[in-house]
Amino acid sequence: MRVTLYPTAESLEQAFLAGGTAVVFDVLRATSTIVTALAHGCRGVVTVVDPAEAQEVAARLAGGNIPVLLAGERGGEKIPGFPHGNSPLEFRPEVVGGRMLVLTTSNGTRALNLAAGRAGTVLVGSLLNARAVAREACRLGRDVILACAGTQGEFSLEDALGAGMVVLEMMKMADPGWLYCPTPGASGLDLSDFAVAALHLALAYKDNPRRAFDHSLHGRKLFSMGLAADLDWCASLNTCEVVPVVGEGKEIIPGCPVIVRS
Amino acid sequence: MRVTLYPTAESLEQAFLAGGTAVVFDVLRATSTIVTALAHGCRGVVTVVDPAEAQEVAARLAGGNIPVLLAGERGGEKIPGFPHGNSPLEFRPEVVGGRMLVLTTSNGTRALNLAAGRAGTVLVGSLLNARAVAREACRLGRDVILACAGTQGEFSLEDALGAGMVVLEMMKMADPGWLYCPTPGASGLDLSDFAVAALHLALAYKDNPRRAFDHSLHGRKLFSMGLAADLDWCASLNTCEVVPVVGEGKEIIPGCPVIVRS
Repeated sequence: MRVTLYPTAESLEQAFLAGGTAVVFDVLRATSTIVTALAHGCRGVVTVVDPAEAQEVAARLAGGNIPVLLAGERGGEKIPGFPHGNSPLEFRPEVVGGRMLVLTTSNGTRALNLAAGRAGTVLVGSLLNARAVAREACRLGRDVILACAGTQGEFSLEDALGAGMVVLEMMKMADPGWLYCPTPGASGLDLSDFAVAALHLALAYKDNPRRAFDHSLHGRKLFSMGLAADLDWCASLNTCEVVPVVGEGKEIIPGCPVIVRS
Repeated sequence: MRVTLYPTAESLEQAFLAGGTAVVFDVLRATSTIVTALAHGCRGVVTVVDPAEAQEVAARLAGGNIPVLLAGERGGEKIPGFPHGNSPLEFRPEVVGGRMLVLTTSNGTRALNLAAGRAGTVLVGSLLNARAVAREACRLGRDVILACAGTQGEFSLEDALGAGMVVLEMMKMADPGWLYCPTPGASGLDLSDFAVAALHLALAYKDNPRRAFDHSLHGRKLFSMGLAADLDWCASLNTCEVVPVVGEGKEIIPGCPVIVRS
């Protein structure tokens, strides 16, 4: 089982994902928000790249009597005129339960929509659900692409960490004795060089994932914007069993993937 | 002091290096070979992207009564018709002493020549001389670009490890107490997310750098080609004080950088 990693949404354009399982990470904060919303009873998340299109999609759903929330950010800030931003803490059960969420974010939705057109199965990963995602990827048994959104075209530490946590959990499942003798090749998983590097990030931060956000450019930016509570939430490793999957054949809006609980 | 990392020669094309110090890594094996040759008395290394051009450059040097060795590889194999390949073990003092070396390799020479046109100072890094390079980068005091060659356009574990070893040594120099309280931001160095990830590779492999080559695609390829002795040599961490620098204003051949001992 081959496990490869792409560090940015841009690099995904060259990825060959056909037939495999892709896992998309935008740990701060889009994919953590999607996982949280679905865990709190959201019916489904429609990810849209463009804000104007997101407004159209939300209006169309509302017109069809589907309860909907419109949410999005650019540069970490809520988009003007949007009722919701991209904080996972906004999507409490009483807010999001039974509703569709239409979401547009700087990096995450782009990576999700790129992956959705290219892979057999697309899962949504974060620190919250890393173990659950690893279990599902092992169950599916196909090659795995870890698709990190990155930040403005650059590698981001937190997305690679999320991907690394999934690798770490997959390795524990493939060979439970592995942690006492960490040799990537010995687990039956064939890790790309980038996946090995991500695994080492997971090993370095597994006892304190929150610390990685202090070492990351985007984590420090969100902290400086007063979003420390979001960071704490997004660092809650393996606290959630939800594995969001991009729906196949369930598109409500052509061209916009709908993410639901698997 | 800002420290950023570029994972492949291709990504370097977007780098803005003006005025800074670039350190180029192609740990398996071009930059390890350059460091070894210069440590063994080589007069200078001319790096050339194209094999035919390398033959021309070598002929021109020989015509000017400059003793010269022609060396190069593609896909890990010696180029047909070339007297030398890209193994550091070929360049013993009695072979390379007092001679110029003209070298063309798959990834390393491309990264070197890209960096040479873009940065104030370009150093050549490897595991062999990581500490010496870190000392020189700290002495120069300018922003640092860690320019990894990568393998065929992909991230390679060994180049990121080499870069990480330089980060680790720079952090020890910036704050000798740092290792007991590893917080990248506390050292006075401003590390990019990728530089932080490389630092964690260095921490993971510092007691056994050779093991990283077993976890790397290119390392395993060279091993399967019978080049285990090269791998052992290239893993000799901090055994060499030579800091190769791309010569400024010393070009023998227009357009071809000449690398000398600093």
